[in-house]
Amino acid sequence: MNIIDIIERTKNSQSLSSEQISWLVESYTAGIIPDYQMSAWLMAVCLNGLTEEETSALTLAMRDSGDKLDLSSISRITADKHSTGGVGDKTTLIIGPAAAACGIAVPKMSGRGLGHTGGTIDKLESIPGLRTELPFEEFSEIVNKTGFSVISQSGDLCPADKKMYALRSATAAVDSIPLICASVMSKKLALGADCLLLDVKCGSGAFMKTRQDAYKLAGLMERVGAAAGKKTRAVVTDMSAPLGNAVGNALEVKEAIELLQGKITRGQLYDTCIELTANMLELAGKGSLEECSSMAAEAIASGRALEVLRETIAMQGGDPAVCDDTSLLPQPRFSYTVKAAHDMEITAINAQEIGMVSLLLGAGRLAKDDRIDPSAGIVMDCSVGDKISVDAPLMTLYSSFCSDFSDAAVRALNAIGYRDLGKVNNY
Amino acid sequence: MNIIDIIERTKNSQSLSSEQISWLVESYTAGIIPDYQMSAWLMAVCLNGLTEEETSALTLAMRDSGDKLDLSSISRITADKHSTGGVGDKTTLIIGPAAAACGIAVPKMSGRGLGHTGGTIDKLESIPGLRTELPFEEFSEIVNKTGFSVISQSGDLCPADKKMYALRSATAAVDSIPLICASVMSKKLALGADCLLLDVKCGSGAFMKTRQDAYKLAGLMERVGAAAGKKTRAVVTDMSAPLGNAVGNALEVKEAIELLQGKITRGQLYDTCIELTANMLELAGKGSLEECSSMAAEAIASGRALEVLRETIAMQGGDPAVCDDTSLLPQPRFSYTVKAAHDMEITAINAQEIGMVSLLLGAGRLAKDDRIDPSAGIVMDCSVGDKISVDAPLMTLYSSFCSDFSDAAVRALNAIGYRDLGKVNNY
Repeated sequence: MNIIDIIERTKNSQSLSSEQISWLVESYTAGIIPDYQMSAWLMAVCLNGLTEEETSALTLAMRDSGDKLDLSSISRITADKHSTGGVGDKTTLIIGPAAAACGIAVPKMSGRGLGHTGGTIDKLESIPGLRTELPFEEFSEIVNKTGFSVISQSGDLCPADKKMYALRSATAAVDSIPLICASVMSKKLALGADCLLLDVKCGSGAFMKTRQDAYKLAGLMERVGAAAGKKTRAVVTDMSAPLGNAVGNALEVKEAIELLQGKITRGQLYDTCIELTANMLELAGKGSLEECSSMAAEAIASGRALEVLRETIAMQGGDPAVCDDTSLLPQPRFSYTVKAAHDMEITAINAQEIGMVSLLLGAGRLAKDDRIDPSAGIVMDCSVGDKISVDAPLMTLYSSFCSDFSDAAVRALNAIGYRDLGKVNNY
Repeated sequence: MNIIDIIERTKNSQSLSSEQISWLVESYTAGIIPDYQMSAWLMAVCLNGLTEEETSALTLAMRDSGDKLDLSSISRITADKHSTGGVGDKTTLIIGPAAAACGIAVPKMSGRGLGHTGGTIDKLESIPGLRTELPFEEFSEIVNKTGFSVISQSGDLCPADKKMYALRSATAAVDSIPLICASVMSKKLALGADCLLLDVKCGSGAFMKTRQDAYKLAGLMERVGAAAGKKTRAVVTDMSAPLGNAVGNALEVKEAIELLQGKITRGQLYDTCIELTANMLELAGKGSLEECSSMAAEAIASGRALEVLRETIAMQGGDPAVCDDTSLLPQPRFSYTVKAAHDMEITAINAQEIGMVSLLLGAGRLAKDDRIDPSAGIVMDCSVGDKISVDAPLMTLYSSFCSDFSDAAVRALNAIGYRDLGKVNNY
């Protein structure tokens, strides 16, 4: 085995054997292959791609680079869910409780937010007292009791992915479908749930900007999952605008609770959650997609899903009262409402830009160790297609640290595409 | 300026500004940009190329990364020559003296061999006593006296190229036309001769395997040279078979001396040397290409070119008697003659393989600090098109360290393509 031959082959679009790929991943993880050779290979992959067999081999080699979780102590059938990153994506907090209320277990390890996309761990940690760093025994006890728990990634799971992801971030090598597939699937396979539901986001706020790329990634992940012997389904969902109205940690928890309280019964967030829960239940053998869809809606409407969340929050040390009174969540000290300067019809909301403004308000991280403001974020008062009158609110910005919203307001306004109804109307 | 943006642009085939390229080269040379980011960019260049403007900007930024030579103390018009690397390429030892004998100065800094191609410095150092590490004053004194001198690269010339070349070697990023152009031209522009002749080798023994690529590189280097205000000409010459009969250091010096002694007056080596010398002289304003061609032939036939070489060898501390008696050069202790197993017609000689066998016999280096055997190498007894009878010699292998030639002989024989005249003859 020789790293230069391996780079050369990928550079020339010649495929690698599984043995070459295993050797590459093992040697890189062990520090035998230096970063500068790996980054050259990763760039060659970005530009020339990998075959499906190579992607499978890469995924398995990365899965095998560290510890694997044993979920056999969990009595119910287990389902895991992964989203490829979105803006305002609080679906885990809804789907997990809803699916658990329908009789399956959703044991989730999740990450923190980085860049314009949020992380479920940050969202949960905005609930006063809630802990996400739990020993595995406590985690599996909660899952056995409530059917749902989310903890932050621990142990030495997929060290190859950690190292490769950091290198890809530093070398503009993130947006490669086979590399995204291997990164997601290696972690999910190491986690070991019975079923795996993948939510591939598509649109301006997602890594996959086009439907074509989203379906390519979805299909690839399903086949790589199947090849590894895992029940896998990938669903493509829209992320051209933020999902729901709230972006920001406590603001998103509030919106998720409101949905589970039955206050939100239509719209894209509700529909996406029902679709994903139904797919997860069907994958777990709970019935047809139509039956599972009704089960999911009923679990929410009956309040049983909120009960699961309440119990889980309590067992993870958080204040379960937030499920009844969301004003117990961190409240922002400052706010600013962006208003329409004239009559307009909303034609687009750039999710990535809204995510960036939310980050700059304090809700997210530019660098890995940045501290976040759990109360910060944005609540949208408009959706695509809405007609807004002059002076009506478009969105409200929140922060506890920054009271001068001028830069954020200008950038946020620029993220909104509209047709001016107060002036000419002929385009 | 941001390295990730720069990698991203090249990855997406968007062009960089001169300022971005200067910043990239300066920051990398200064160690601010780490190897792993530079190697990702270099791989993106390998796969997506650079525009001509980007290549010029890269060349100038690399030229300006270190010292520049001042050749103003040399009274004659100066010409420099570069070959893109070949097998058996001893042309510098012939062209330099011939051009000097025609009234121009050829001050050359040269490199050592690496891989299957040889280096002029290694060849010259096989002459007993000859020194190639001379201070600049001594070098310019020799050039002013004889018109010709070759020393090894010294000083801090193009440190950016040194660093980038080492990184490219380690990351399979060598065979990129814009990167080869920038590497060659930055060094040649830093050297500062009035005229620059580029010998672009084409064929199995060269970096450029096809005529199309060779002409692409030749044209690019001419335009980048012209844009930098240098009289530049690039000539494409054949390297599908080794140039001349000898491959290896002392063996090549012997062949060069024999040509200058008037013992070789036809064949590819002779023709290539006349063509290159004539182009160099014409570039320096010595007449038409036809006139310069006659001048070059006359300089060799009259023995004046050999006189220049003799004087230069003496002034660099070498034994000038080698010019009359080549047996004073290091003699190999062992030899082995590879013979034809049946009647055959030679259809091809793979120059790269012959270069590799010569290297393995001790004539070259696999790694930068390997020691070489000046006596080792190969002398071909056949050329493409020759009909060889059974048991007649095809080539002789030489070494002072290895007396078992079996592996080398098999590999060398495999480098010869032939049509079997003893058997069927119908393909």
